[in-house]
Amino acid sequence: MIRVCRPFVMLTILSAIPTIFWLSLSVQGQASIRGFTAASQARETEVETKFKSIPSPEEERRQHRIFTAEPHIAGSKRNNELARYIADEWRKQGLEDVVIRRYDVYGTNPKRASLEMIAPTHYRATLREAALADDPDSKKSAISGSWFGMSVSGEVTAPVVYAHSGNPEDYELLRKNGITVKGKIVLVRYSNPYSYRGFKALTAEREGAAAILIYSDPAEDGYKKGKVDPDGPWGPEYHIQHGAITYDFVVPGDPLTPGWASVPGAKRIPIEQAKSAPKIMGLPLSWHDAKPLLENMDGPVAPPDWQGGLPIQYHLGGERVKVHLQIEMNNHIQPYYVVESRIRGAELPEEWVVLGNHRDAWVFGGVDPSSGTASMMEMTRALGQLVKEGMRPRRTIVICSWDGEEVGLTGSTEWGEQFADELRAKAVAYINVDEATSGPNFHGQAVASLAPMLVETTRSLQDPSGESLYEAWKATVAREKEQGKQTGQMNDSGLVDGALADTRIGSGSDHTVFLNFIGVPVLGLQFDGDYGVYHSAYDDFFWMNHFGDPEYRYHTLMSQLWGVTALRLASADLLPFDFATYAENVRQFVNEMAKGRDLGALDLNGLRKEIDSFEEAGQRLNESISRMLASGRIDAQLAEHLNHGMMQVERNWLNPEGIPGRPWFKHILYGARFTYAHLELPGLTEAVENQDWPTAQRQAEILRHALETNTKLLDALNNSIVGAK
Amino acid sequence: MIRVCRPFVMLTILSAIPTIFWLSLSVQGQASIRGFTAASQARETEVETKFKSIPSPEEERRQHRIFTAEPHIAGSKRNNELARYIADEWRKQGLEDVVIRRYDVYGTNPKRASLEMIAPTHYRATLREAALADDPDSKKSAISGSWFGMSVSGEVTAPVVYAHSGNPEDYELLRKNGITVKGKIVLVRYSNPYSYRGFKALTAEREGAAAILIYSDPAEDGYKKGKVDPDGPWGPEYHIQHGAITYDFVVPGDPLTPGWASVPGAKRIPIEQAKSAPKIMGLPLSWHDAKPLLENMDGPVAPPDWQGGLPIQYHLGGERVKVHLQIEMNNHIQPYYVVESRIRGAELPEEWVVLGNHRDAWVFGGVDPSSGTASMMEMTRALGQLVKEGMRPRRTIVICSWDGEEVGLTGSTEWGEQFADELRAKAVAYINVDEATSGPNFHGQAVASLAPMLVETTRSLQDPSGESLYEAWKATVAREKEQGKQTGQMNDSGLVDGALADTRIGSGSDHTVFLNFIGVPVLGLQFDGDYGVYHSAYDDFFWMNHFGDPEYRYHTLMSQLWGVTALRLASADLLPFDFATYAENVRQFVNEMAKGRDLGALDLNGLRKEIDSFEEAGQRLNESISRMLASGRIDAQLAEHLNHGMMQVERNWLNPEGIPGRPWFKHILYGARFTYAHLELPGLTEAVENQDWPTAQRQAEILRHALETNTKLLDALNNSIVGAK
Repeated sequence: MIRVCRPFVMLTILSAIPTIFWLSLSVQGQASIRGFTAASQARETEVETKFKSIPSPEEERRQHRIFTAEPHIAGSKRNNELARYIADEWRKQGLEDVVIRRYDVYGTNPKRASLEMIAPTHYRATLREAALADDPDSKKSAISGSWFGMSVSGEVTAPVVYAHSGNPEDYELLRKNGITVKGKIVLVRYSNPYSYRGFKALTAEREGAAAILIYSDPAEDGYKKGKVDPDGPWGPEYHIQHGAITYDFVVPGDPLTPGWASVPGAKRIPIEQAKSAPKIMGLPLSWHDAKPLLENMDGPVAPPDWQGGLPIQYHLGGERVKVHLQIEMNNHIQPYYVVESRIRGAELPEEWVVLGNHRDAWVFGGVDPSSGTASMMEMTRALGQLVKEGMRPRRTIVICSWDGEEVGLTGSTEWGEQFADELRAKAVAYINVDEATSGPNFHGQAVASLAPMLVETTRSLQDPSGESLYEAWKATVAREKEQGKQTGQMNDSGLVDGALADTRIGSGSDHTVFLNFIGVPVLGLQFDGDYGVYHSAYDDFFWMNHFGDPEYRYHTLMSQLWGVTALRLASADLLPFDFATYAENVRQFVNEMAKGRDLGALDLNGLRKEIDSFEEAGQRLNESISRMLASGRIDAQLAEHLNHGMMQVERNWLNPEGIPGRPWFKHILYGARFTYAHLELPGLTEAVENQDWPTAQRQAEILRHALETNTKLLDALNNSIVGAK
Repeated sequence: MIRVCRPFVMLTILSAIPTIFWLSLSVQGQASIRGFTAASQARETEVETKFKSIPSPEEERRQHRIFTAEPHIAGSKRNNELARYIADEWRKQGLEDVVIRRYDVYGTNPKRASLEMIAPTHYRATLREAALADDPDSKKSAISGSWFGMSVSGEVTAPVVYAHSGNPEDYELLRKNGITVKGKIVLVRYSNPYSYRGFKALTAEREGAAAILIYSDPAEDGYKKGKVDPDGPWGPEYHIQHGAITYDFVVPGDPLTPGWASVPGAKRIPIEQAKSAPKIMGLPLSWHDAKPLLENMDGPVAPPDWQGGLPIQYHLGGERVKVHLQIEMNNHIQPYYVVESRIRGAELPEEWVVLGNHRDAWVFGGVDPSSGTASMMEMTRALGQLVKEGMRPRRTIVICSWDGEEVGLTGSTEWGEQFADELRAKAVAYINVDEATSGPNFHGQAVASLAPMLVETTRSLQDPSGESLYEAWKATVAREKEQGKQTGQMNDSGLVDGALADTRIGSGSDHTVFLNFIGVPVLGLQFDGDYGVYHSAYDDFFWMNHFGDPEYRYHTLMSQLWGVTALRLASADLLPFDFATYAENVRQFVNEMAKGRDLGALDLNGLRKEIDSFEEAGQRLNESISRMLASGRIDAQLAEHLNHGMMQVERNWLNPEGIPGRPWFKHILYGARFTYAHLELPGLTEAVENQDWPTAQRQAEILRHALETNTKLLDALNNSIVGAK
């Protein structure tokens, strides 16, 4: 193990160049890098230039082909082979401490399923995704049929009710029409408006339905959106959106170990007691299989916004259409594998920048997650190459390939729960890439303290359009704002006014344990576009090569962006947090929560005052740090003190009790609704929505107190700088 | 010719019964009949009871089968055979003065048409309405293909633009998207919102398009509405909505004789000078033929309200899709035939109640018009039977079978223009039935002066639901109000608040010449329902027997209603006009015209005052007439004076100059937009919309003056009653 620290040699040389030179460079167009002295920035720019030159579209495609060659669902033989492949590759690439961690978790697999309409006519659902002539992968016999992760097994014969999106208000409308779903089977569509399929299942379970069928309406992701696969990016007739229906919005990870890791010998609760395990049968359907049911339904005509894109008139149903549904699952404890590796930090190995992407896919995972996995493999190859050339970052970069993300965010959650104490002490940030790309539109998420840093980083990268990624991002945000378009698959995040980074962070991917359970600042990077084959067998290599990213340029850009962002966090002299921005963001959260709402006797004055104080402290710290960086003189001990202090800020947003009713979710600024949609100030907001004033007042006080703690922390850090002068 | 006047014998007898008896009958539940003395009412009730007992569902079906047996387009051999059949039947039924009148008009027939997409792929449009397995008529080879009446012949190869509904605002949106239609072919859909296809053609012509294709989107009349033929009433994949694109909203009838009749030796203008003759090629399409064009289009995605019910994403097009369109028409002067007959009035033969229905159909005409024709044949059989039994009405009832309604309202217009002077002198009212029934929902139209009489009449008829037609009508209006549903095929009539009768009368059927050119009060009767095969080959006997009126009960009810309404108008002692209601309606028209509009310096005070005066005069006359009828003593000479005076009121609403820009349309209260939608106070409203204040002021003055004339007329009539006492 040779550790040649060439960059520091370079640093020494470059340090000799007068600071004024770097400052003038900044002025003349070279973007300055937040958190770096001029000297460090020069080195960093050199490193980044080298780093960015390494990932190649050809290699991205080669890796993507490997990961999309076969279906690789969590727990499958192929997915475990890919874990070993990643470990082997990483070792070859020069990554260190490569280890495969095993978690024995409650896994889910299908045995068989059948769905037959027995009245008014007979129809046997295909429950299969038919082969496309142009797409050889789609012909592979290994393609699984229709199933939902964590469905229960069972058999039922019952009438079918069309319950629109399957959200609580939809059942209200059915009730108004005299239609009950008790003991019946509800047929709902995926997205109108979007909500996580697990919440649809829980809602159906609460309503007393015997089973839930969820189908992909062409109005949402099919021909109503544009050309369908193999002629375009949208979902074809037979596409099935697989997925888990786990109630991971209550508690994610292995349902048998809620809040602790599924390591050998861990305590396990019985599945019957698991809050995140559904008690209802569920099956996803293509519209091909849903249409015969919908077009035979009786009952009132469904309201206009319930009418979908199928060439029929939608009815509420309830009596005439009867189906026989049989589902046999194979849910049992089985191993999931997380692959872990690192580039040890040259100076601060006990400070970690953590990167992760999940490996498991519902079928081939063309976009989700293998575009991210391919980008990760090129990103790690480039990191390894830097190390081989002596350019090791100051801090440790930890890279993980998660397993079972698709079944309740399981791998990352178990890993996070296992190493929670260590992460609390060491983690600077977690950067998640799930789907790297389904198109050209950049979507960057960050906790507000890191939003300015993320935006700044995009100025240093070139978008395939020829402009900087920053300019391309601005154009995308402007366009999406104009279209009133929702951003992302998983939530309807609003962007901070005028800003680019999305600071509304819900759940639905592997950042969850870091942010909500441990208090690690998170970033999420993604390119998206027209994409109608999400979680289906058609999300594959063919799709990516024809629609998503045919030239793998966005894969390559993602490798560059991900790595550069990590390198900056890993090598900054002073961590690039901006707490004044954070304060401003929290103020927006409070304003949005209060807007147009009856707040009863809830007193938010103390809270608002504390936000002002936190903002002022953040501004003072920003200024002190800027001066310190501009001076070029950084005392290592002071820097460590400051950096550890700044890392603590995010931890201080956690309430050990968790938010009311969901103790696992501890962050008081960020939460997620049961739909997976972002939910700011979750404890306070939910209490206000419920008009539960004692709880609301207590949650406001918890928030005020956290702000006070962080204000004091920032003031102490600032004083340590001023005192050091 | 034996004229046995048995009713008058009966009258004499009944007159002996004390008036008080009839009054008490009225109080005890026997509806009183407006315009009748108690004695006359007794006779009328007897007559009506007899009349209503005659029409039978079996006969309605038999007649309907005869009229729907073959296609019978205007000018065709079959349609002319049917004219002879009607004349023969009428003679057998006992109708008098049966005559077939010939008009040599500019007719329209297809020779051949072809439509081929030549880029980006090849598709040859079928231009045919495919046979339905269950419907034997649909297999008849005589079924014509796709064509529009009055299209010009030509050939063009050009790109296709999707122009939504083809209304002017749609071209505005295209322009905003940088898309011009000059020299291109526009593809538009029928109804969203509804506008008459001729206006779409004129708009396309004005925009410089080379041709217009109009297709039936399943969102409007197909599977998005419900089950399609042969499983339900909505339009199937291959249905083509035929129709004329004549600009009859400028001037209806034979384009070569605008404003005079096409009798032998009549002056004819060259077709090039005819304002109502389109100069553009046009072709209707089924959605089967439109889909290949729409799904291959390029250009921006069409806005949400332009997206239709086809399983594709709609684009604006403009470049990629190119078609080769060839249309050869056979437009030339040819004879149309109007069949005319009458029941001569026993006492007042020179006062006419005119009834009419058109005979010509686009193909079989199941609903349009043969349901009306069948109802007419049963109505005339019953009238003939009354005459045979000695129950002859006091006034003459004239019954006409129009021709070429579908091609610019031609037959009725030429007939009306020929007999305009006679009608001005003699016509009490015109009662139009076009489509008798496409379902169970009654829709009754009347000029406001006859609205109370029509509503009253429906109390005397039994709906198939078991309730009175009046109660069924109330339920329909309430239901349609609740659904915010548009009423009728041809317009989006609003109903007078609280009233049942629709007093917003646009164009689109044979009442037009009577109301707008001659000033005859009109009524229109129709039952409607779910009906997606309008103007297509599937509008046939099969459709009627499975969906429209399988038991012919609404046909039967229409025969009864039509006849009873005519009998009341024909035998009333004093014509049942209500001018106070008319005044209230005109006030509503003015309020609606003014509502929310910038009226500039337009002074409506004089107008409003005159409406008040007219209303008061109407109330005074109503009271005087009521008293006169209650007294039971009607002086024949005074009655004739009053009736002729009341008939004059409608004539006084005509401005001989016509409305600005459309001299043929002379009525100042009722008009139609180019879309065929009703347009109240047409001259005034259009001037206000154009902010043309001098014209608006002049139109307001014309209206005020007409009101003043009618107020004076009513006062004179009232004085003649008071003076006679």
